[in-house]
Amino acid sequence: MSLVRAYTATSPNAPLTPGTIERRELGPEDLLIDIAYTGVCHTDIHVARGDWGQVPYPLTVGHEIVGTVAAVGPEVTRYRVGDRVGVGCMVDSCRECAECRSGEEQYCLRGCTDTYGGLDRDGSMTQGGYSERIVVHEHFVLRVPDSIPLEKAAPLLCAGITTYSPLRKWNAGPGTKVAVVGLGGLGHMAVKFAHALGAEVTVLSQNLKKWEDGLRFGADHYHTTDDPAVFELLAGTFDLVINTVSASVDLNAHLNLLAVDGTLVNVGAPPEPAPVNVFGLILNRRSLSGSKIGGIAQTQEMLDFCAEHGIAPQIEVISADQVNEAWERVLASDARYRFVIDMATLSRH
Amino acid sequence: MSLVRAYTATSPNAPLTPGTIERRELGPEDLLIDIAYTGVCHTDIHVARGDWGQVPYPLTVGHEIVGTVAAVGPEVTRYRVGDRVGVGCMVDSCRECAECRSGEEQYCLRGCTDTYGGLDRDGSMTQGGYSERIVVHEHFVLRVPDSIPLEKAAPLLCAGITTYSPLRKWNAGPGTKVAVVGLGGLGHMAVKFAHALGAEVTVLSQNLKKWEDGLRFGADHYHTTDDPAVFELLAGTFDLVINTVSASVDLNAHLNLLAVDGTLVNVGAPPEPAPVNVFGLILNRRSLSGSKIGGIAQTQEMLDFCAEHGIAPQIEVISADQVNEAWERVLASDARYRFVIDMATLSRH
Repeated sequence: MSLVRAYTATSPNAPLTPGTIERRELGPEDLLIDIAYTGVCHTDIHVARGDWGQVPYPLTVGHEIVGTVAAVGPEVTRYRVGDRVGVGCMVDSCRECAECRSGEEQYCLRGCTDTYGGLDRDGSMTQGGYSERIVVHEHFVLRVPDSIPLEKAAPLLCAGITTYSPLRKWNAGPGTKVAVVGLGGLGHMAVKFAHALGAEVTVLSQNLKKWEDGLRFGADHYHTTDDPAVFELLAGTFDLVINTVSASVDLNAHLNLLAVDGTLVNVGAPPEPAPVNVFGLILNRRSLSGSKIGGIAQTQEMLDFCAEHGIAPQIEVISADQVNEAWERVLASDARYRFVIDMATLSRH
Repeated sequence: MSLVRAYTATSPNAPLTPGTIERRELGPEDLLIDIAYTGVCHTDIHVARGDWGQVPYPLTVGHEIVGTVAAVGPEVTRYRVGDRVGVGCMVDSCRECAECRSGEEQYCLRGCTDTYGGLDRDGSMTQGGYSERIVVHEHFVLRVPDSIPLEKAAPLLCAGITTYSPLRKWNAGPGTKVAVVGLGGLGHMAVKFAHALGAEVTVLSQNLKKWEDGLRFGADHYHTTDDPAVFELLAGTFDLVINTVSASVDLNAHLNLLAVDGTLVNVGAPPEPAPVNVFGLILNRRSLSGSKIGGIAQTQEMLDFCAEHGIAPQIEVISADQVNEAWERVLASDARYRFVIDMATLSRH
């Protein structure tokens, strides 16, 4: 067991505070990673504030983690000290079930272990990346290509794979029309990926404030969902709609934008059930679906795709003591487009 | 224009009454069909009673039509007088849009023409199969294989294709687990098809009254949805759930029966929006979908599949003057499993 510096939530409403947390001893197949940067994901805020259920405080969140390998267990085969690596939303799974064997560890039939707030094999609760070091089994570690700056790689581990995976699953590419609902941390990555995959991309945003950004990220069209006429104009248009908004949106209005055989994939969701017009699904063989991050192999594929296509998130690097302020800006939709915490600044405390 | 005998709805609440309706003159590519049998579909009742919207009475319903060709227009190429034929839920479409060209006329981008209550090209309203003759463009006519008795072919034109199409679209077959919700006219065909396609089939019914029938139709398992323990027992089991129930069912409970990447396809639906837990879709990449009948080419494929595999619905033949009583039995879930009207009995009136 070792103590490492971290920023930690202690109650639903209190600001995160600096302190220390424990990391387990290095197991035979574990890596010790010196964390360089951790991205700020909306999920961090939802979980830390108890929006999605009770939290066993104190909890250190953060699941967009990049850094360098500081030590390796004796049976580690794929990484060496000094390697540039990343850790995303899960740090373990059963590694035996059909889903794990097929590389879809995020759907592990016994439940994958979340990077924070999950139950680790030793019975302790996992603690996330708002901290200076982490110990992770090598299977759940990704290699960050040399051409991607570490700070820009961080958001790829959640916002990146969460949008890349459904775009691949539902075959976004040349000849397909993709709409991205919401241009935040996830949405701006969805636009970049869909564009790089060759799809015709439309952003559907609450307003037109980020219009220029959207086109710069690769969108071909940009509309505001604030205007009901947009829903008439675009009815029956899209093969795929990626909904990145975790607040309630009118799903039926968005389902109506789908062409025959189109799919609306939710990667964010409100806690309350949403009313769905089933007749609307029948009349055009439409689907309402969801998608959760992506498997480890696909996460590596996504990182390599980013390196190949020069894709990276637009980020704002902050120091650790700015994290509470950054959270408020995330809640106000004021991030452009992802905050990334420079973990070197933790040592100031 | 010619007058033909028919049973007709004149108001939402009045019983169907015998009378006459008009059929258009035979166009160059039209067939005149002597109707031998017409199946009784739950949709007939919903539409005739105004459950799904206003109806321009008088209306003759019926879209599970079989008979023999009595006359052909001069440009008809595929049928001859005396051929055994069928007509299903649509009698026309634009025949030019991408969906029509790809053989999915039911999703015609300009809207296909329903067999009854639809707007025909001459501006008249289409009238359905509870009648002695019908005039239909040859493209929307199916060939009934010789080995299928005409009366048993009738329900295939709606109940058959409506369940066959999603089973094919979502790849029911060896190694897949399919659940069929509701064992009525549609459900019992879904069981027969899924079994013939090689899937492992489970019936989920309100109660166990039809248990023996279900197994005889080809189900491997049979459970009642009345028992909450069933939903725990079967959680995460099915690749495909075909929901044939048009009353409200708890979609979230049924979605939870899906394995990762599983799809719940609705072929019936209540008029009210249904609450859907989007998180449940995300956590296992599940889909909620719908499917509407099937294209003309696939309907012919389904009829040929029935001939090849010896598949036919279980029916009860009634005379035309029993139709009002039959409707009440359909509403009471007392059909075993499809009423088929013998149109020869129309001439008694």
